[in-house]
Amino acid sequence: MATLHDLETPALILDRAVLDRNLSRMQARMDRLGVRLRPHVKTTKSIDVLRCVSGGTQGPITVSTLKEAEYFLAHGVTNILYAVGIAPGKLGHAAALTSRGADLTLILDSLEAAQAVRRAAVRLPVLIELDVDGHRSGVSPDSPRLLEIAAALGDSLRGVMTHAGESYNCTSTAAIVDMAEQERAGAVRAAERLRAAGFNSPVVSVGSTPTATFAADLRGVSEVRAGVYMFHDLVMAGIGVCELDDIALSVLVSVIGHQEERGWIITDGGWMALSRDRGTAKQRVDQGFGLVRGVDGRALPEDLIVISANQEHGVIARRDGRSPDFSRYPVGSLLRVLPNHACATGAQHARYQLVEGCEPQVVGCWERTNGW
Amino acid sequence: MATLHDLETPALILDRAVLDRNLSRMQARMDRLGVRLRPHVKTTKSIDVLRCVSGGTQGPITVSTLKEAEYFLAHGVTNILYAVGIAPGKLGHAAALTSRGADLTLILDSLEAAQAVRRAAVRLPVLIELDVDGHRSGVSPDSPRLLEIAAALGDSLRGVMTHAGESYNCTSTAAIVDMAEQERAGAVRAAERLRAAGFNSPVVSVGSTPTATFAADLRGVSEVRAGVYMFHDLVMAGIGVCELDDIALSVLVSVIGHQEERGWIITDGGWMALSRDRGTAKQRVDQGFGLVRGVDGRALPEDLIVISANQEHGVIARRDGRSPDFSRYPVGSLLRVLPNHACATGAQHARYQLVEGCEPQVVGCWERTNGW
Repeated sequence: MATLHDLETPALILDRAVLDRNLSRMQARMDRLGVRLRPHVKTTKSIDVLRCVSGGTQGPITVSTLKEAEYFLAHGVTNILYAVGIAPGKLGHAAALTSRGADLTLILDSLEAAQAVRRAAVRLPVLIELDVDGHRSGVSPDSPRLLEIAAALGDSLRGVMTHAGESYNCTSTAAIVDMAEQERAGAVRAAERLRAAGFNSPVVSVGSTPTATFAADLRGVSEVRAGVYMFHDLVMAGIGVCELDDIALSVLVSVIGHQEERGWIITDGGWMALSRDRGTAKQRVDQGFGLVRGVDGRALPEDLIVISANQEHGVIARRDGRSPDFSRYPVGSLLRVLPNHACATGAQHARYQLVEGCEPQVVGCWERTNGW
Repeated sequence: MATLHDLETPALILDRAVLDRNLSRMQARMDRLGVRLRPHVKTTKSIDVLRCVSGGTQGPITVSTLKEAEYFLAHGVTNILYAVGIAPGKLGHAAALTSRGADLTLILDSLEAAQAVRRAAVRLPVLIELDVDGHRSGVSPDSPRLLEIAAALGDSLRGVMTHAGESYNCTSTAAIVDMAEQERAGAVRAAERLRAAGFNSPVVSVGSTPTATFAADLRGVSEVRAGVYMFHDLVMAGIGVCELDDIALSVLVSVIGHQEERGWIITDGGWMALSRDRGTAKQRVDQGFGLVRGVDGRALPEDLIVISANQEHGVIARRDGRSPDFSRYPVGSLLRVLPNHACATGAQHARYQLVEGCEPQVVGCWERTNGW
């Protein structure tokens, strides 16, 4: 069986044991809270990962692109929520997916989009996107526009959805708990307003990995969406949503040189392999372009991070600026870099090389989909 | 013929007219300076683009990965410089490329890598990488190690190469001119030291888009490498290497919503489509995640940039913070975003949709290679 030493670097490594642990933990939480999980596949984009999540069932899932919807539908997954506001130009594609068997639900937050949906030849189910935290898109749960859009949608309306993206910027567990309640309460309030006005709103969909991890109560919510929890990353660790050892994803890199005077270890893992995500830059601990571990995934005796990155070069140095013991990292040796943001790092790669814990064997290879 | 309005967004748009102008300008410079151009294909990663560069010839080219070498070799390009320090674990792959007809040259900057090259079953030609600006990798042109590596390489040695990556941080044309001379002088000095010590050094390879654009003199240099100049980008415009109208690459996005109270136009062009590159963040003009133009590529009446980006959402706002005239950008309308960094943005996409100037027709589609 091949080992990590047989792989050409840079390569994306997925620890199957950590993945399984992350999946079980979230599923147990959802079971306890009595809410259905609709995993977001935008982080992992792999049918093999989804099979671990859902135990071989056919969904439901959340996608961030119609390309993901295409890919998962081709693998038999039909119950799909496309959780980015629909561009009217994509309605034809959405209808084609439906005609091929997808049970595809769209989201939108404007009258114009609602009218475009109603004009489309194929009737597609829709959730109204809510803004509960000022993060990005959505209508306020309390706005008159909510009811106007509902009226425009007619029998296309299925309910409401929101994503408390600001939870990524919380700096304490208590703040995430509060954000989860803000997310839940806003969505439930909007659904109740719709129902009071005579509209149908069976679906109340919420979620983000931080709020899903810490929500104390999900009364009135019909489903939770989350994706990053499967792999976790340094941003999640930085806000206390996971521990470093819960990070299932890493990038295997080779040492290609030393700049001893500057204390630098040069590797072939640049931003193309790590992504340019600097999500920890504004956190309490800035992890540079990633935290460095040994080839076995374990912490090193020295605290190394990727301090800078060019396209196919990573510069690793000690966090404290002192010179590392270069003899530990000879030219040709392997290291693993934990990612700031699993969604961004994953997307730079076409496949996962699977390991189990600290063992060097590569126990499988899973393809992923990318692009549009 | 399809137009931009027929494309599903986000989509990567390449203006063929601008590309051709950028290529002609650089080739004319190299002809004037009497130096061979070895284009770096890491930005464009497309045989179709390379055919425009070299007029249908078979190279020479520079690559940043062995995957690029594989791809271009499969299209008949044999003269290839792999310009990232060779990891000993890749020597088998490099040898396999050679056995399939590639005239592949490697680079390295350590005795360990030199010894690994000498131990390999297939003899591969090598350039010693020089550090002329403290930017990244390489040995100093004046160091004893230069001669030690040369001795270890024996008849694998072909010469020296360097890349003045610090030129990207220059803030004036005069500084780039100086950096170009520093790059040239360092490489020529190293080659002369090697020759004086009895080594062969026919190749003296230098280059970066800024230094190639402004070098006043390239005496002693045998070839220049550059890649970004083909597409240009906001980082290059920010240091005066090109004008905004020289940027050949853009990302076509759809408006999917408005947050009127905050002055935001929401699009489906997030960091997945634009990349997370924030290369202009430290420049005089911070372009956010990209500068917004009309669907025809022309400047808009309002100065809009992408102020933030999530995975599949871009938030566009006026640079001055005032509310835009939303009626100009209805839901479903198209915009084009100029990229901070063409290499990073290009790599997020699998293909280029071609246009010619401001015309809406899509005149072709070119695939690109990505990954490893």
